[in-house]
Amino acid sequence: MWRDLAPIGRSTSSGGYFRQPWLSAELELRAWFREAAEARGLEVEEDPFGNLVAWWGPAGPSVLTGSHLDSVLDGGAYDGPLGVVSSFAALDLMRERGVQPSRRLGVAAFVEEEGSRFGRACLGSRLAVGATTWADAAGLTDRDGVRLGDVIEGGRSTLLDGVATYVELHVEQGRGLIELDAPVGVHSAIWPHGRYRYDIAGRADHAGTTRMEDRVDPMLTYAMTALAANKQARVQGQRATFGRIDVRPNGTNAVPSHVTAWLDARAESDAALASLVTAVEKQAVERAERDGTTVTVTAESVSGEVAFDAALRDSLVARLGGVPVLPTQAGHDAGILQDAGIPTAMLFVRNPSGVSHSPYETAETADCLAGVEALADALSGLVTGEVAGEVAGEVAG
Amino acid sequence: MWRDLAPIGRSTSSGGYFRQPWLSAELELRAWFREAAEARGLEVEEDPFGNLVAWWGPAGPSVLTGSHLDSVLDGGAYDGPLGVVSSFAALDLMRERGVQPSRRLGVAAFVEEEGSRFGRACLGSRLAVGATTWADAAGLTDRDGVRLGDVIEGGRSTLLDGVATYVELHVEQGRGLIELDAPVGVHSAIWPHGRYRYDIAGRADHAGTTRMEDRVDPMLTYAMTALAANKQARVQGQRATFGRIDVRPNGTNAVPSHVTAWLDARAESDAALASLVTAVEKQAVERAERDGTTVTVTAESVSGEVAFDAALRDSLVARLGGVPVLPTQAGHDAGILQDAGIPTAMLFVRNPSGVSHSPYETAETADCLAGVEALADALSGLVTGEVAGEVAGEVAG
Repeated sequence: MWRDLAPIGRSTSSGGYFRQPWLSAELELRAWFREAAEARGLEVEEDPFGNLVAWWGPAGPSVLTGSHLDSVLDGGAYDGPLGVVSSFAALDLMRERGVQPSRRLGVAAFVEEEGSRFGRACLGSRLAVGATTWADAAGLTDRDGVRLGDVIEGGRSTLLDGVATYVELHVEQGRGLIELDAPVGVHSAIWPHGRYRYDIAGRADHAGTTRMEDRVDPMLTYAMTALAANKQARVQGQRATFGRIDVRPNGTNAVPSHVTAWLDARAESDAALASLVTAVEKQAVERAERDGTTVTVTAESVSGEVAFDAALRDSLVARLGGVPVLPTQAGHDAGILQDAGIPTAMLFVRNPSGVSHSPYETAETADCLAGVEALADALSGLVTGEVAGEVAGEVAG
Repeated sequence: MWRDLAPIGRSTSSGGYFRQPWLSAELELRAWFREAAEARGLEVEEDPFGNLVAWWGPAGPSVLTGSHLDSVLDGGAYDGPLGVVSSFAALDLMRERGVQPSRRLGVAAFVEEEGSRFGRACLGSRLAVGATTWADAAGLTDRDGVRLGDVIEGGRSTLLDGVATYVELHVEQGRGLIELDAPVGVHSAIWPHGRYRYDIAGRADHAGTTRMEDRVDPMLTYAMTALAANKQARVQGQRATFGRIDVRPNGTNAVPSHVTAWLDARAESDAALASLVTAVEKQAVERAERDGTTVTVTAESVSGEVAFDAALRDSLVARLGGVPVLPTQAGHDAGILQDAGIPTAMLFVRNPSGVSHSPYETAETADCLAGVEALADALSGLVTGEVAGEVAGEVAG
């Protein structure tokens, strides 16, 4: 399966992936998903938002696994696809072993998990569970001004009706398993996180003729804010990043009139996130006063902490022989489903580079196979009722 | 003439101008130039690079005036067009007054003066005098990857053959005339200036899961460099600006892999420019060591000081009744022609906002009329031989 996926949407210069939803690379991945399902005799269901599930076994209460196929801009090969590929591989393994499911098993590929095109992370799963309404999402635009409502028809999803449990496998995006020397782990929770847009307004001026003391330069306010975010995150033990910036007019010989930049902030608790975000904004406003600029901060999305289902987690850890349990700082569709009341668990596979959202992201074959083994084991327990996953019938819709 | 020009290439949101060479707004301005020349019975000559001259009077040694029609991104109305409009108006005034030219007078519009599309300032005049070769320029690309060689045919210009003197009128781009309370001045020299590209390489990473201490974030190196440039310019009494930046992948939830940014630096002497540029690079490299990033600095263009022809300047100042003489920190086609051996002078008109390369740039009607009066006076002296401008025959080509 990796051989088929490796070239799709890959940049020849960086080696990274550009798999934005509903553009050619991602459409090719969706076609691949349908072929993989068809080759296994699985029925594929697609909802009006483009979320896909390949079903196996009898209708009724279902166990869902899977992940997503889209990537961040210039992302790695594993973030998303590892979960989808491992799900198909786990299903193959369960069949080889003659597992007889008493519950239906679905392999899912949620759309626009990264928010790399329309700016809202986990958009597909949010729409599927109703956490985001179609009326709200239809008006989202990409960087070229294309409306989501003009890309897909939208409507109402029934894809997750009857899903009683969700298990997502993902490549690790940090160094936890490297340090613990383990191939596979289970996530306990997702850190609270948010995206905050900084609009910094100054005054355009000639870069040569305007005296330094006569300038109102928003780039200076931005630069100090980016350094302040880094420092505050270090001091408080949390995470803060300015990775995206839009400068107007962005000319070499003009003092900018406007800088827009996005703060990505994550923290171990809601209170820690609020403290971090407040500290960065305070320093930005202080610097703006000095520069004569104005700063407006808009929270584009803020997610509170998600604790995964404790009973499910404990059963899985026991079944997998005491694998490590760690929180993650990354948002996932698993968090959206858990928040929507579907008991959810996450497995994660060691990443020797420790980096993600980067062409350097990697995973070793032995660890990936250990991940498939663990996932097959967990799913076998769930579809046969051996693992005590909650099966509450109609949970979400 | 202003009524005709005002709407062309104007942004409805900022009120600023987007007049990049060989795109629709600038092509409309070129058509306007031809109409203005035709209405006055002037013959228009265009060279293979798109530089235009409208000629009046007998063939032979010529006096050239004019400026440019293109703008920076989101620029003001006067930078460039004021010189072209004032040249036509001065010619009208000279005719009204019955000036009998013994030398030919040309009104010029040089192309891509701002370097806003192909990144090299004064490109048209550089090509016209041969300071830049066509072989070199043809490979320049704009932000969309379009090659200059695919936009124009190029070749060799004979437009300036026989030009013995050049006088350019320009809106002031600083506060000199405001402080001296004078409507018109003469420039003594152009400060040395340069554009330096900073390529800062780091490592892309997940913005949430990567610990602060594990990052190699080029945005931090950039931010410190932008602040250092500002500080060094203040301390040394010179000018430094980071107004343009390009971030990869420029995603909210990714630590960037690469930041490219452009330093615009200007100083009162070549030594002062070298000192400024060295100090900024030193601080960038120091910060890069701390961040684990690498910095590569490329000088894209560096221009030494240009002192305008002293004899011409003194004659003009005397003829105009002792107007103020000040240097400028901005590059101009006048500097290119002076450097190519054509005795050149610059007149400039007060700008009450003190700002340029900005929608706020302005000029009062009375000051503009004083500028036209001064230009007509200067040109009348030159075309009749009353002012001792050097007329050396074939100077450039």
